[in-house]
Amino acid sequence: MKLKPSPFAPAAFPTLPAVKGVLAATASRGFYARRGVERDDVFLFVLPDGTSTAGVFTRSHTASADVDWCRMALKAGKGKARALVVNAGNSNAFTGKAGVLKNDATLKAMVETLGVPREECFLAATGVIGEPLPDPNYVGQMLPDLSGRLAPPDWEACTRAFMTTDTFPKASGGSCEIDGVEVSVAGILKGSGMIMPNMATMLCYVFTDAALTPEVLDTLLRGSVDRSLNSVTVDGDTSTSDSCMLFATGGSGAPLIESADDPRLEAFRALIDETFRDLAHQLVKDGEGASKFVEIRIEGAVSEASAKTIGMHIANSPLIKTAMAAGDANWGRIVMAVGKSLEPISKDEMRIWFGDHLVAEGGMRSPGYDEARASAHFAGDHISVRVDVAAGDAAWTVWTCDLTHAYVDINGAYRT
Amino acid sequence: MKLKPSPFAPAAFPTLPAVKGVLAATASRGFYARRGVERDDVFLFVLPDGTSTAGVFTRSHTASADVDWCRMALKAGKGKARALVVNAGNSNAFTGKAGVLKNDATLKAMVETLGVPREECFLAATGVIGEPLPDPNYVGQMLPDLSGRLAPPDWEACTRAFMTTDTFPKASGGSCEIDGVEVSVAGILKGSGMIMPNMATMLCYVFTDAALTPEVLDTLLRGSVDRSLNSVTVDGDTSTSDSCMLFATGGSGAPLIESADDPRLEAFRALIDETFRDLAHQLVKDGEGASKFVEIRIEGAVSEASAKTIGMHIANSPLIKTAMAAGDANWGRIVMAVGKSLEPISKDEMRIWFGDHLVAEGGMRSPGYDEARASAHFAGDHISVRVDVAAGDAAWTVWTCDLTHAYVDINGAYRT
Repeated sequence: MKLKPSPFAPAAFPTLPAVKGVLAATASRGFYARRGVERDDVFLFVLPDGTSTAGVFTRSHTASADVDWCRMALKAGKGKARALVVNAGNSNAFTGKAGVLKNDATLKAMVETLGVPREECFLAATGVIGEPLPDPNYVGQMLPDLSGRLAPPDWEACTRAFMTTDTFPKASGGSCEIDGVEVSVAGILKGSGMIMPNMATMLCYVFTDAALTPEVLDTLLRGSVDRSLNSVTVDGDTSTSDSCMLFATGGSGAPLIESADDPRLEAFRALIDETFRDLAHQLVKDGEGASKFVEIRIEGAVSEASAKTIGMHIANSPLIKTAMAAGDANWGRIVMAVGKSLEPISKDEMRIWFGDHLVAEGGMRSPGYDEARASAHFAGDHISVRVDVAAGDAAWTVWTCDLTHAYVDINGAYRT
Repeated sequence: MKLKPSPFAPAAFPTLPAVKGVLAATASRGFYARRGVERDDVFLFVLPDGTSTAGVFTRSHTASADVDWCRMALKAGKGKARALVVNAGNSNAFTGKAGVLKNDATLKAMVETLGVPREECFLAATGVIGEPLPDPNYVGQMLPDLSGRLAPPDWEACTRAFMTTDTFPKASGGSCEIDGVEVSVAGILKGSGMIMPNMATMLCYVFTDAALTPEVLDTLLRGSVDRSLNSVTVDGDTSTSDSCMLFATGGSGAPLIESADDPRLEAFRALIDETFRDLAHQLVKDGEGASKFVEIRIEGAVSEASAKTIGMHIANSPLIKTAMAAGDANWGRIVMAVGKSLEPISKDEMRIWFGDHLVAEGGMRSPGYDEARASAHFAGDHISVRVDVAAGDAAWTVWTCDLTHAYVDINGAYRT
């Protein structure tokens, strides 16, 4: 089926800075050609010796063979990275021994062609789950061609090469200084929920030419991802292949940072945070069938974890998401979702705002409730829900999209 | 909006037995008249002195004032019950002090009109959440009229009086013997998910003329509900008002049963189980927009709780429910949902069946997989998914419906 572009698709691909040391190439393995689409579907990134990396992966107990490999390599290689190969079109998840053979063949080709250590090579795949792989070397055989065409990344070409059912390519980045030396950050992301049958997965790769140890990278990555990719939801479903990695080449010439508490990191940390937040928001804005971008802020919770749990109960409620799709300012459903979270709250002291309008307080509808004002806010394409649950001092923000007819259409389509 | 009847609506209301000792009356308070619908929207049940009861209620932290009262009364009255008043049209949830005043006024009228102890009176309400109550005595003032018309229950009239957006009245029951004496069971239920904006709530009341202590009733109720009402889901959302109560009048003349392990209970326990299971299945079959009835059985789990968690992850996945609506036998999504449950499983040994057809085994698609056979099963209106997660010996079954366009339409409709 032909997907309608998200109403939030930007007019042009964002301008990303050059990241010193990073080389890339894209090519077509033909995964989409058999569906009548001409496009690249594989990319290779090659990184200079000494590049640090950190990664977070799906917690799923049915994780793909690629995720299993990356987790292992991250440990075995002690956070060093030299190459990354990703393909779209087949997720290599639930493919049994064939999936492991495919990884072995791809890694063998990477080692032989690029002359890099096996445990510094990373893999990902996205597409149909459980689809048999006809040829275990289907990606590995492309390595000689790809490595012969390496060049500073064409970020848009790379981003387009790992899209599955994304309706626009998603990227973000910028520059700042570390100890007076300019450093750059460029990140690319694919995913829009599990938008097409078996076309799952969020993949996100962020590159910088700052010089950071794997430990510092890991701290930065986990801190940023908690408040960005781990705080968005489209449908509450978790892919078998979700992967997010951060790479630091050191190519900027900035001094090596060996502690996440180093004050010289302040601007850089903010840039990393902003890059991940921007990518996470783009993910939600390209969520399956999304017509509205929704921010849900929970305040007054007993802990950040509790605030996030409450926020996710609101963000994942089909009743709330369908009401938002219709622009129905149905605050009773927010009460329902807060209640079913089973988190500590004060029912009689909690307050709910839609935008700046206080809709509920004192265990009931606010005396100042104005249906027209609440509805006007819900009629827009950016909805803000704020809840003070009056049980503590912690806050968290999550983001989601609405649940529309397009979601049902897209996800009911046959696996063709 | 006018709701299309569920394709599973039965041709006629089921025949229920008389339950000795139970009296009832229904009336219209006009909650629906202002929407142009002529119907009853309040019922009163009156039970003989000595009637035992047990109840389970929503775990929501934003439970309605009625639920708060019932929980309190069950304790204070030591499991005795004399009367039950329920209204449809306003849920009395998140109505602040007005909600408590309404309950006080209703209870006062019940005590004065019926001459029964206050803590043996039970209440429930279903409808719009957070809608202000114009008159605290809006139900209490009906008691004199209702009590003047008490008679053996017209079960269909009672069931229709507490429907909100149910598309058919749901009831079940039957008879069996305890120690050679015939006893009867009749149960009524309303709910179809939170099908209309703010029209929430599952309410279920089962009456028997067996003689059972409150402790025995409580054990029977919890055992049956775990495997019935607590094992179905429509959208994963939990109402502020869910209530389920079991009443035993003793009117049959059967001997008083004082232990849940009493062997004379065997047939009765089976009848109670079957009544709750039938009511739970009717609930799912009238789920919002349901076009398919789905049974999900998890085997080989490390515990029954683990099996249920895995089953509910499958049953609540929007990706799976939309695929089912379209008849797409998308087994990769079952793998995804099993994985995201985070429960113990053996990825390489788990097996998945659609109906009798084995679709996945050995960590991959089954060699005997037949797309036509899998699709044929998904094309029907009864879908059976069975997963052996190969981690232990425990099993559990849950039931759900599909997620269709009608769900989006129904739940996006304005609160009118």
